[in-house]
Amino acid sequence: MRKVCFPVTTRGNYGKFKPVMQAVKAHPELELQLIVAGGALLHKYGDFVEDGYLGEFEVDKKIYFLLEGENPITMAKSTGIALTEFTSVFENLEPDVVMTIADRFEELAIGTAAAFQNIPLAHIEGGEVSGSVDESIRHAITKISHLHFPSTERAAERVRKLGEPAKSIFNVGTPSLDVISKLDLDDIETVGSDLRDKGVGADIRLSDDYLLVIQHPVTTEYDHNRRYIDETIEAVDDLRRPTVWLWPNMDAGADAVSKGIRVYREQNDQDFIRFFTSLPLEQYAVLLNNAACIAGNSSSGIRESAYLGVPSVNIGNRQNGRQRSDNVVDVPHEAERIKSAIEDQVEHGPYPSSSIYGNGNSGEKIADILAEFDFNIQKQITY
Amino acid sequence: MRKVCFPVTTRGNYGKFKPVMQAVKAHPELELQLIVAGGALLHKYGDFVEDGYLGEFEVDKKIYFLLEGENPITMAKSTGIALTEFTSVFENLEPDVVMTIADRFEELAIGTAAAFQNIPLAHIEGGEVSGSVDESIRHAITKISHLHFPSTERAAERVRKLGEPAKSIFNVGTPSLDVISKLDLDDIETVGSDLRDKGVGADIRLSDDYLLVIQHPVTTEYDHNRRYIDETIEAVDDLRRPTVWLWPNMDAGADAVSKGIRVYREQNDQDFIRFFTSLPLEQYAVLLNNAACIAGNSSSGIRESAYLGVPSVNIGNRQNGRQRSDNVVDVPHEAERIKSAIEDQVEHGPYPSSSIYGNGNSGEKIADILAEFDFNIQKQITY
Amino acid sequence: MRKVCFPVTTRGNYGKFKPVMQAVKAHPELELQLIVAGGALLHKYGDFVEDGYLGEFEVDKKIYFLLEGENPITMAKSTGIALTEFTSVFENLEPDVVMTIADRFEELAIGTAAAFQNIPLAHIEGGEVSGSVDESIRHAITKISHLHFPSTERAAERVRKLGEPAKSIFNVGTPSLDVISKLDLDDIETVGSDLRDKGVGADIRLSDDYLLVIQHPVTTEYDHNRRYIDETIEAVDDLRRPTVWLWPNMDAGADAVSKGIRVYREQNDQDFIRFFTSLPLEQYAVLLNNAACIAGNSSSGIRESAYLGVPSVNIGNRQNGRQRSDNVVDVPHEAERIKSAIEDQVEHGPYPSSSIYGNGNSGEKIADILAEFDFNIQKQITY
Amino acid sequence: MRKVCFPVTTRGNYGKFKPVMQAVKAHPELELQLIVAGGALLHKYGDFVEDGYLGEFEVDKKIYFLLEGENPITMAKSTGIALTEFTSVFENLEPDVVMTIADRFEELAIGTAAAFQNIPLAHIEGGEVSGSVDESIRHAITKISHLHFPSTERAAERVRKLGEPAKSIFNVGTPSLDVISKLDLDDIETVGSDLRDKGVGADIRLSDDYLLVIQHPVTTEYDHNRRYIDETIEAVDDLRRPTVWLWPNMDAGADAVSKGIRVYREQNDQDFIRFFTSLPLEQYAVLLNNAACIAGNSSSGIRESAYLGVPSVNIGNRQNGRQRSDNVVDVPHEAERIKSAIEDQVEHGPYPSSSIYGNGNSGEKIADILAEFDFNIQKQITY
Repeated sequence: MRKVCFPVTTRGNYGKFKPVMQAVKAHPELELQLIVAGGALLHKYGDFVEDGYLGEFEVDKKIYFLLEGENPITMAKSTGIALTEFTSVFENLEPDVVMTIADRFEELAIGTAAAFQNIPLAHIEGGEVSGSVDESIRHAITKISHLHFPSTERAAERVRKLGEPAKSIFNVGTPSLDVISKLDLDDIETVGSDLRDKGVGADIRLSDDYLLVIQHPVTTEYDHNRRYIDETIEAVDDLRRPTVWLWPNMDAGADAVSKGIRVYREQNDQDFIRFFTSLPLEQYAVLLNNAACIAGNSSSGIRESAYLGVPSVNIGNRQNGRQRSDNVVDVPHEAERIKSAIEDQVEHGPYPSSSIYGNGNSGEKIADILAEFDFNIQKQITY
Repeated sequence: MRKVCFPVTTRGNYGKFKPVMQAVKAHPELELQLIVAGGALLHKYGDFVEDGYLGEFEVDKKIYFLLEGENPITMAKSTGIALTEFTSVFENLEPDVVMTIADRFEELAIGTAAAFQNIPLAHIEGGEVSGSVDESIRHAITKISHLHFPSTERAAERVRKLGEPAKSIFNVGTPSLDVISKLDLDDIETVGSDLRDKGVGADIRLSDDYLLVIQHPVTTEYDHNRRYIDETIEAVDDLRRPTVWLWPNMDAGADAVSKGIRVYREQNDQDFIRFFTSLPLEQYAVLLNNAACIAGNSSSGIRESAYLGVPSVNIGNRQNGRQRSDNVVDVPHEAERIKSAIEDQVEHGPYPSSSIYGNGNSGEKIADILAEFDFNIQKQITY
Repeated sequence: MRKVCFPVTTRGNYGKFKPVMQAVKAHPELELQLIVAGGALLHKYGDFVEDGYLGEFEVDKKIYFLLEGENPITMAKSTGIALTEFTSVFENLEPDVVMTIADRFEELAIGTAAAFQNIPLAHIEGGEVSGSVDESIRHAITKISHLHFPSTERAAERVRKLGEPAKSIFNVGTPSLDVISKLDLDDIETVGSDLRDKGVGADIRLSDDYLLVIQHPVTTEYDHNRRYIDETIEAVDDLRRPTVWLWPNMDAGADAVSKGIRVYREQNDQDFIRFFTSLPLEQYAVLLNNAACIAGNSSSGIRESAYLGVPSVNIGNRQNGRQRSDNVVDVPHEAERIKSAIEDQVEHGPYPSSSIYGNGNSGEKIADILAEFDFNIQKQITY
Repeated sequence: MRKVCFPVTTRGNYGKFKPVMQAVKAHPELELQLIVAGGALLHKYGDFVEDGYLGEFEVDKKIYFLLEGENPITMAKSTGIALTEFTSVFENLEPDVVMTIADRFEELAIGTAAAFQNIPLAHIEGGEVSGSVDESIRHAITKISHLHFPSTERAAERVRKLGEPAKSIFNVGTPSLDVISKLDLDDIETVGSDLRDKGVGADIRLSDDYLLVIQHPVTTEYDHNRRYIDETIEAVDDLRRPTVWLWPNMDAGADAVSKGIRVYREQNDQDFIRFFTSLPLEQYAVLLNNAACIAGNSSSGIRESAYLGVPSVNIGNRQNGRQRSDNVVDVPHEAERIKSAIEDQVEHGPYPSSSIYGNGNSGEKIADILAEFDFNIQKQITY
């Protein structure tokens, strides 16, 4: 029995880990270990443990590592704290494989903690480009990982070029599509009623032609985040359409983004926006699928919306270099441009589904490989 | 004035940083910042500050980050501590460039602390292969660095293949050769008299045909380090030639290596070995240059000895994949093989000098580039 | 010039430090050092630096030490982080005296960091009893402090009994009364207009007969905090009077208290409460002075309200053992009892001013003593 | 079953914990938990786990917390690290009582970690005075502890005066006497042969009239430690009697003391001293009992030597304020005074046994109390 350890730190990575965790749990030769940590433990981002998001999964350990402050200094120090904390927990849980995903700062800490203890490291979503310190983190994690699960052909090719052995690289698609592919995305009633119990603000119906907005801070353009969010707010305020707005995640700069939203809420009488702090992927997918358009800089505006064919307006540089399908229009942080792009996309309506990010069976693929892969802990560059 | 910050953590990296620091200090457009940290502050490895090794350089800040224990757990936690500590110090010193070197665990912490604060990072000796977690660290540092100073053509080529922009890569050779090229390596008397005041054990003369031994722990073969050192000790004990032995550095496994040496010293009456805990490069170079043979797994048995043409017996996997000149013979951790390789090399005598690791002017080259390089903090992979 | 270092970590301790800091700054033989840290740096508690609360004072250093989570585990770990961080900062600032105050967990870290470096430690508000781990912290700080500024006669007597030398103990009163004694507490207009720009919710006038509510978590009764706040909410909701409500501070349990308040706000249509996250003492004092009654478990319901003669309803055990004047009525966490006590106190109206907590000149007294006190770093118990 | 957790961090505290641990292990209502941490894990101080000192006891968890450097800065930071690490381990082990002892810096961290999680804390050897920051630490631990086991009547009285409830204070004597009282202290042969296998230097017999020397650093007189050890070395070197010398423990200043000893050893040809790094109490007690005189500043020169009647020369201020029996002569750090005091004590010969530190049954007493004590986690000062 190989023990496969999943450190869940945000709703975003949980959404992608979940189908893999289900497949690992169901696999006869694998044992699931679950660590809930960082943002996933905080009420303000939606506490996974208390709020029941984790469903069937048992938590082996909780780790608090986020230093309050949400700026580059606390991001770096939180990474240091995460490294010392995950080291202890891996020492206790003795996993046979540790899973990392994408490019958040804590993923580098998790990967380092595993690699320094000679525990094999598997990385989901390596090989993508994003044009910020996140990208540096992503490639650094690739270079300390022993097994790679990129989610597109182009990403797999990049991992190979980075000097990783071809036999350690598997293009399995994005696991978040697993969840989406199994949902009844047209079940507006159940989800709609769930959503009415959450969030605050206007009463938005899934049957409305609503706009979905998610704008995260851009960590490398730290000082501009307040202006960036204000531009988007101005566009949305001008449009005056039914809007669902999700709060940003906890990266450096989140304070500025949150403040912008809070100031707008407190100083304006508007009755067309509903705010949510966090949603499980099951609800989020229905929300996205039924949106007239998604706007902001979330990766779901690139990936999941490609699969679902939702018109997407991607704002600014945060998703630079990520593979796009036809449904995406890129605009800079300018209210006027954002506004008109949204108008155009709403008018265009749904796009055909694209499979550049996979077909919804990543979880099983990953679990099968995890069970059989012959890890070489003494990795060496291929050239 | 660009402020260039050098974090000195071991005698090894100081030996390489020193000529660069001198060139930076002398450069009209650069300002030198010096952090002394970790092993460089400890008496047992030779305290740089107290023992006067730093000579002309002023210390801006000291950082203690090494957790006692010298095993994979403390190595990982020390990295976490280093990350939080260097973050504070960079916040205070506000450097314009941070220097990292090679592949030690703390270099990853130093690099991460800089990159997360959007401070440009320059890396010396990227692109080499070493076949252990150190290699993963080295390439991970490359992926978060903005400027690269590899020390051979092959290393430069690897950095380029790793997706770093060609214009950010400069093959400048190994800076430690700068020091060596400026020394009077035949000045046996001054150095010899200095050495007699240091170390403990037999009275070895530089005019003797002595053997030089340096064996560091192999971090990825943690449990074998005691056996490895014992094999080498057996070979040296059999040879009974004049021998100069340097204590290992502080990586995980150092305790086992040290214990092996201590046990041998306490249980055996031998009168042909002199032990040193730490030597400045100036003295070390003379010691190496006059050695009949160097044996062990130090990188100086590959690099500096290539330049100096000293016969070298490289033991085990620690230096796997590092470019070699003709002067190196590789043997496994077996006493008999080690012994006969040393005998052969001593008989062979000196080799011709090789320039695969440069020509002794790396410091000036690096300083000039640091002064003029146009940093792109928003780095992106080239493919 | 003696350098006197003030670590400001909450609005509460800043309110008390401020008059002392002013007196230190004005004193010819003293130099002020200011560290802003922890909760005082966070937007959610009101960022002191950005929000301009610090006025005339320059910040020497910021320290982030709060691990997100607000439970006993993160409280303990935050204390550990604070200890390592303050150690570095004291090493850099080289203060001649470090100031601590009261009984928060970070004060123990601050005191330990100073004492271990043999920096004299002065403690304001030692010798009080509060019946929880806070009390243990307070007395532990007394035992590592070299100079004591208790705020009542009874507290001074306790410090003496704890084995501290009589000549190191000075009953100077509570410094927060300094600020209050100098304010024009009847200047309803200026402050009222300031307050209308802050906070969210109902439009409350200072001329209204409003209720002031502040309920902090009780760290030793961690699991009960949600129930405690719900009882208070029920009482306030029943009363339906004009109410000003201040958010709790960041102790373990704050999440539960905040959630209770948030749930109430989101699920109830009420139009008689205005919420504030943080207020400078100058505005808070006017708010308190004009209140018909203060209810909750803030120490200001005991101390400042004694001086101002404001009717106070103290709920639960958090203020147990603190010296009370006649204006305080104690009730348990029961909605019915809270409600009727508030009604009685409002009916009773203002009480005469009491001087058990001093007369408003603590700052000058403390500064004078700090300038002249002959510290004995080698402290020894008196019996 | 009450789970009683012992954090063992030095040979010194293990010597005292051991009889208590044996009694706890044997008690039907108690369960033993053992954490080995800090200095107890390091080879240089004698690794408890590897070297088999722990005998019958199983280790539940290891904790590394010592930051290398051995100065006030690393002492403070190590305390911070210890606090965060012990917090995690207590969270996992869920002890019902945590044991602390005496006054080392990590004991404050251990106590704080327990108290902040509302785990009852028992403290052995509270109420003693020692005239340095250690004393502040000791009394601070008393103020956060819930159960007290002072080792003399005077110490118990001090704990009571510190405001602790009389019913929580038990004068049980020093547990290290338990071990000694059960040993055959005249069994010179077994122990003598054991000792010949350890240590380095001259061949000293237990039948010799040898001098026993242990000199620890004085943390509050940090800069003087090198001079202090040099004075003692000079005295011992002049005396030229058979001498057994134990290395100092790891407090701030240990580097200076160790260096003094090392320099003396390397620069002098002497053949009358045998050095030991660490000894189990069983062997140490025989060594002490047979010594003609003990000299230095170890507490065993005050306590155990009182019970054994060994002539003792106590040097300097480290043991100031500790209760003495007639066998102790105090001298300052002056070679001449040290030398003549040792000569006088050797001439005087053995003293009668004293019971001021108990009679050798502390372990059972403590275990019985631990099993039955009614802890009040909500402690409050008695006055």
